[in-house]
Amino acid sequence: MAERLVLHEYSASGNCYKVRLTAACVGEHVERRQYDIMKGETRTPQFLREVNGNGRIPVLQVGERFVPESNAACYYIADGSGLVPTERFDRADMLHWMFWEQYNHEPNIATLRFWKDWIGHDNLSEAQRLQIPLKREAGEAALKLMNDHLQARDWIVGTTMSLADICLFAYTHVAEEGGFELSKYPRVQAWIERVKGQPHYNPMNG
Amino acid sequence: MAERLVLHEYSASGNCYKVRLTAACVGEHVERRQYDIMKGETRTPQFLREVNGNGRIPVLQVGERFVPESNAACYYIADGSGLVPTERFDRADMLHWMFWEQYNHEPNIATLRFWKDWIGHDNLSEAQRLQIPLKREAGEAALKLMNDHLQARDWIVGTTMSLADICLFAYTHVAEEGGFELSKYPRVQAWIERVKGQPHYNPMNG
Repeated sequence: MAERLVLHEYSASGNCYKVRLTAACVGEHVERRQYDIMKGETRTPQFLREVNGNGRIPVLQVGERFVPESNAACYYIADGSGLVPTERFDRADMLHWMFWEQYNHEPNIATLRFWKDWIGHDNLSEAQRLQIPLKREAGEAALKLMNDHLQARDWIVGTTMSLADICLFAYTHVAEEGGFELSKYPRVQAWIERVKGQPHYNPMNG
Repeated sequence: MAERLVLHEYSASGNCYKVRLTAACVGEHVERRQYDIMKGETRTPQFLREVNGNGRIPVLQVGERFVPESNAACYYIADGSGLVPTERFDRADMLHWMFWEQYNHEPNIATLRFWKDWIGHDNLSEAQRLQIPLKREAGEAALKLMNDHLQARDWIVGTTMSLADICLFAYTHVAEEGGFELSKYPRVQAWIERVKGQPHYNPMNG
């Protein structure tokens, strides 16, 4: 890869970790630039103008161009590697799980972790507080769906680790920080250990 | 394409329309099977077991296999066509906008349309009612981001229509049904007309 890669990130974010783990798995070097989201550093006029008009991290910088959205950044890095299936159905199935992660998993499991450990319960708005039981229920349903899916398979798609595993791993393996009990989902626990056992595995705080 | 394609859908859903519009644009025949989501027809034990454990439509059936998640179903149909850029950066950039659509656009713009015209204001829960102003603000921000992005370009990614346009078009062109005024976003309006002017364009109720 000719162009320099820079990850604009907040390192405790699971969405940012996905991109680092993808890079580690394909042996790609990515520079890291930190922003403190708790201080609004991704909402400054400069960030909005130059990095991401949506005011969010991660953003993968490729030369002078930018790829926002964690799962798209992972796809850029992994494109052409063994993490993206070459078979048409499997490639779409991988994307299915990546879209599902952003719609059904992250907004529940990651958000409850963020509200609990970063925002703090006392600082939540009434609208947020009323969403807690709904997000709890939807998060449990997401973990159950993964557990059921992993009944007769080692990996989310096909027979090897793909981007779908990496993108789902990021917030699943720290779900207990959001109050979810992973012991209720033993096949998810076994899958977490399987990902951790991969030769290029890199921990979240690594 | 050798395998038979069946779209499991609810035709008034923008997420289902995306898949039909993609198929129309690439000249692919897709059979349609209807489910009434208002009657819970996608939550039956049979649907959960045989079609989608997540209980949602659309699902694209490919032979005997299934692709849930609208944007993944679109990707399956368009894979290898001119709707998916061959250049690596553009392909990731297209996915960026498709993930953004599912995270920042659909949960606000589509959900307010659904709550207003399907559920009805009086039937909303307190948690939903408190989210209305937040979803209104986030939906306006999404439309503004699109309008800003379209300042110096005709299409969301690259110089031709891609899946990113189709996936964003579905709920944007009916955003007024959710109470959004598209006249505030003239470049989005011009882009909507551009999509409608494409030779294989197929309307939502077509």
